[in-house]
Amino acid sequence: MTHKRLCIIGVGLIGGSLARAVRVNGTYHDIIGCGRNTAHLERAVELGIIDRFELDVSKAVTGCDMVVVAVPLGAIQSVFEQLADHVDDKAVITDVGSAKECVINNAQNTLGKAFSNFVPGHPIAGIEKSGAEASFAELFQRRRVILTPTNETSLEAVGRVRDMWEGVGAEVTNMEASHHDEILAATSHLPHVLSYALVDSLAGTSERDEIFQYAAGGFRDFTRIASSDPSMWRDICVANRDAILKALDQYQHDLSILTQAILNKDEDTLFNIFTNAKQARDRNIEQV
Amino acid sequence: MTHKRLCIIGVGLIGGSLARAVRVNGTYHDIIGCGRNTAHLERAVELGIIDRFELDVSKAVTGCDMVVVAVPLGAIQSVFEQLADHVDDKAVITDVGSAKECVINNAQNTLGKAFSNFVPGHPIAGIEKSGAEASFAELFQRRRVILTPTNETSLEAVGRVRDMWEGVGAEVTNMEASHHDEILAATSHLPHVLSYALVDSLAGTSERDEIFQYAAGGFRDFTRIASSDPSMWRDICVANRDAILKALDQYQHDLSILTQAILNKDEDTLFNIFTNAKQARDRNIEQV
Repeated sequence: MTHKRLCIIGVGLIGGSLARAVRVNGTYHDIIGCGRNTAHLERAVELGIIDRFELDVSKAVTGCDMVVVAVPLGAIQSVFEQLADHVDDKAVITDVGSAKECVINNAQNTLGKAFSNFVPGHPIAGIEKSGAEASFAELFQRRRVILTPTNETSLEAVGRVRDMWEGVGAEVTNMEASHHDEILAATSHLPHVLSYALVDSLAGTSERDEIFQYAAGGFRDFTRIASSDPSMWRDICVANRDAILKALDQYQHDLSILTQAILNKDEDTLFNIFTNAKQARDRNIEQV
Repeated sequence: MTHKRLCIIGVGLIGGSLARAVRVNGTYHDIIGCGRNTAHLERAVELGIIDRFELDVSKAVTGCDMVVVAVPLGAIQSVFEQLADHVDDKAVITDVGSAKECVINNAQNTLGKAFSNFVPGHPIAGIEKSGAEASFAELFQRRRVILTPTNETSLEAVGRVRDMWEGVGAEVTNMEASHHDEILAATSHLPHVLSYALVDSLAGTSERDEIFQYAAGGFRDFTRIASSDPSMWRDICVANRDAILKALDQYQHDLSILTQAILNKDEDTLFNIFTNAKQARDRNIEQV
């Protein structure tokens, strides 16, 4: 089968980088961008990210073999509604949302017979910058992509989405959507919430100018993710609410144990918690 | 005045880097290391960090113009006790501890007449690695050093410590010790506590292997400081307990507001908190 025409709805960091990467590997001959902002889309054409663009989702998806929905989570349902009656019968639809159960619900509510051709997906490849200008073809190399097909999802569709991501250098894994949402809540959504909360908290103090003035490298690293796109993270917090709340609850419980140890000057407990954390990180996270 | 002989007690990352840096700028002709581990000190001599070493603090400080106490906070009082009766009348003593009120209390309790020659200091220049092997002469370049002299501290002593740090490329500021401790609690100690708590919390879950497997760049940055030396951070939590508890209390209050907004799917509040944080960080922290 030849895959010739790709539609990318939402030409931001992820959508733009995917477009660049599939152009490099030559899988698609025609890459159509779709979005709401004409100037952004014109710029994406200028940059050679997409070949052409449509503002109307129904026109953009017509005749495409693959449709990648790369809009923020809060806009996915609306995009599904607009494409459902216009996407080709054999076209595969996928998304890149950071939470998967909500997207599957959106798809079930809107896609109709196209639902079996929809493959929920999540490339774990964000950076704190956003927008097509920040996109680059190598973003997905050696990154993980998680697919969370349902019992109704066509195996052929899953295979084609897997091929697309492997073609741009990613490692693809399948997972239950609910499990994906728990893992990502712990490893990505919770850290973002904690980092945003810290910077917001410090920005609200009377000493904020001094605090930022004396911030060193550790602070810069810890808060880098607080420079991420606020609307994207608002949507993630709503979309993956339950798993994030569960992770936050566990975290606040563990933080209160640590707080108690500081209160009691309990040196052994402090040393044990810090040692346990250091060993877990050193063992598991690549040192960079 | 010529400053010829420098004693560095605790030849770790900070002590070792300072020794390397003053050797480069030629301020001191003789650099004596002091510590408890002969093999480490022999290695520091081999690496050219120090000229020679003593295991006995009283011998190490004798005849020195400048004594830098670069041991963990929990060991400072003991070092002060050992050096008080042996340090020269004109020698200046300084430290590099991350909390200052407790060190001043230690000094008041132990240094006797040498107290007026003691200049409490804190170079804000840590990295998550530790030990003399990780030390390098450029560590303090363009870094801030905060001095927190008391009303009794000799102005000449403050000037000599300032000269030493400026000589290795640092920017030196004076500050009240209590104010230093509040600022550092917010900007350094709190993030370390939060990062350690996160990794410890995740390491305690049944899904920990998967969680670390799917951790991406954001997680790596956020948790880098959780690879810091556990005994150093245990000491900091005890030494700066009150300011850290105050910062933790404020943080937990602000985090609970954010948690409530997630619970209520309150999109406006989430967007406002995230935007406020992003703007504060982008405005204040150098983008790297």
